[in-house]
Amino acid sequence: MSESIDLIQEYIHKELPLINRVLDRQIKDLNPLVREVAEHVLGAGGKRLRPLLTLLCFRSFDQNPGKEYDLGCAFELLHSATLIHDDILDNADLRRGRKAAHLVFGIDRTVLAGDALLALSNMIIADYGNADLTRCVSEALLYTASGETEEIFWMRKPNLDQENYLQIIRGKTAYLIQAACKCGGILAEAEENRIRDLSEYGFNIGTAFQLVDDALDYTSNSSTSGKPLGGDLAEGKLTLPFILYLNSLKQEEKTGLLAKLAADSFTRQEREDLIFRVQKGGFADQVREEAGIYIQRARDALLHFPHSREKNILEMITEVILYRNH
Amino acid sequence: MSESIDLIQEYIHKELPLINRVLDRQIKDLNPLVREVAEHVLGAGGKRLRPLLTLLCFRSFDQNPGKEYDLGCAFELLHSATLIHDDILDNADLRRGRKAAHLVFGIDRTVLAGDALLALSNMIIADYGNADLTRCVSEALLYTASGETEEIFWMRKPNLDQENYLQIIRGKTAYLIQAACKCGGILAEAEENRIRDLSEYGFNIGTAFQLVDDALDYTSNSSTSGKPLGGDLAEGKLTLPFILYLNSLKQEEKTGLLAKLAADSFTRQEREDLIFRVQKGGFADQVREEAGIYIQRARDALLHFPHSREKNILEMITEVILYRNH
Repeated sequence: MSESIDLIQEYIHKELPLINRVLDRQIKDLNPLVREVAEHVLGAGGKRLRPLLTLLCFRSFDQNPGKEYDLGCAFELLHSATLIHDDILDNADLRRGRKAAHLVFGIDRTVLAGDALLALSNMIIADYGNADLTRCVSEALLYTASGETEEIFWMRKPNLDQENYLQIIRGKTAYLIQAACKCGGILAEAEENRIRDLSEYGFNIGTAFQLVDDALDYTSNSSTSGKPLGGDLAEGKLTLPFILYLNSLKQEEKTGLLAKLAADSFTRQEREDLIFRVQKGGFADQVREEAGIYIQRARDALLHFPHSREKNILEMITEVILYRNH
Repeated sequence: MSESIDLIQEYIHKELPLINRVLDRQIKDLNPLVREVAEHVLGAGGKRLRPLLTLLCFRSFDQNPGKEYDLGCAFELLHSATLIHDDILDNADLRRGRKAAHLVFGIDRTVLAGDALLALSNMIIADYGNADLTRCVSEALLYTASGETEEIFWMRKPNLDQENYLQIIRGKTAYLIQAACKCGGILAEAEENRIRDLSEYGFNIGTAFQLVDDALDYTSNSSTSGKPLGGDLAEGKLTLPFILYLNSLKQEEKTGLLAKLAADSFTRQEREDLIFRVQKGGFADQVREEAGIYIQRARDALLHFPHSREKNILEMITEVILYRNH
């Protein structure tokens, strides 16, 4: 595992500055009022997971690097656009450890900067002149917005079950990561079956990524994640660790908790107590186990890939996603 | 003029139900939470100007109708998406005479429904498999979001001049109308010069359309326009009729007014008085004259078009835009 991380880190160490340079170039000509918001969000760092995945998926089938950077970075722009809209909806204070954009620039500019970033990434992708790329991305974006809408709809609602929850996290995370992987394959003109594998790989690591994210919300803390512990519960979002905890309770206790959640009437002490119980009851760990199932599916999807350093790293990424602690 | 209107109305009367049927089909498979917002906005009516323009521009060069409907309607979806985001930013109460979407569904669902509609229209356009279409639309959307950002930036700012104002209205209105026209030509595979003409036509009627809109804000009333009179001034938006009025004042009086505008401290009576002065001073009429210059440019752009009923209607539309009173 530590060897894998070294190899990934070496790769990232080389690619990250290149990715960031392309991002800088892509946003350079934006209207200054929009660019400032984009720089705030992109400048806060982030893992650049989506561009990296596009690069790796492309290079698994085309070893002539170059044209995949713009495509990969367009996914970071898309991701940033959804993040800043999302933060407005969540009333989030922090993003990547920085003050959320809407608190710095106001809601109005931030909504529009999100729209502009969506348009810019569409433009970059359109410039490839490949309709399959555009279609793949538009579809993913539509599912993403729909998933986020579902998430808001289900806030503080007591009857959210595991199936609805999975539908939400697919929407909010998996589809865009899936598209980042699939588009790498489309650009590399990989054969259809392999593009399907990439799509499968992306969908499953995306789902696992969000499962682990939701587990970390009960076990990590703001100094490493840039987000406060128990943020989902505070916002009224029922995620899988809490759903599993609820399912472990007697009906009466469960009903009481859900009523308080619906009324948004937990005290801070009660919330901290609940977080503690989710942790100690092993429910966050159970969610990681669930994530492990998706990780296995993602690994299986790589079976028929030709041997390459990039294939190895795609495999290793599955483990990093599963075992990350922030 | 009244003959022209008959001809246009006959055309619209035939096309409007077809356009609405396509729109219904396009939003049918949206997530129900998103679809409800889309239905609210689209169901409120509207002129369907953008789809109509796409249809007309397409048919000016390709008389085999059919495939242009989806493209045209995608522009109505795009337009609706920008409207609902825009209403949030403007804190608008009414849109097309109906309660604005964010007041019915909440800001969260409305932001996301806007994102979903943007994504859906991109998807519909991507399905044509023509990268020129996608590029044209993405570019227009980027300019639109940038223009709207400029508009917000300039709110209540005293030093907005006519040039900045024109930049804003190009952004918020002209570029998307331009794209609706240009894409009709692209889809019809018109020759490059004619596509440039369509682009010129759309840009100029779009600019004129917004100029007239801004003039109407000082001369129309909510029973015909669905918006209250003087809404721009109430929101702190400096539009051309007011800029021209300001320029007619002595420096001292101008400075006083701008200070009040910046402080948002007009009484209702003062605002009504200002609207009256803009009307009576003929400043709204001056704006319509300015619009006339753009209308002439739009007409000139049609000079080299082959003779067709659609060309005639495109010409007539320029007059309808210039002389409309709601």
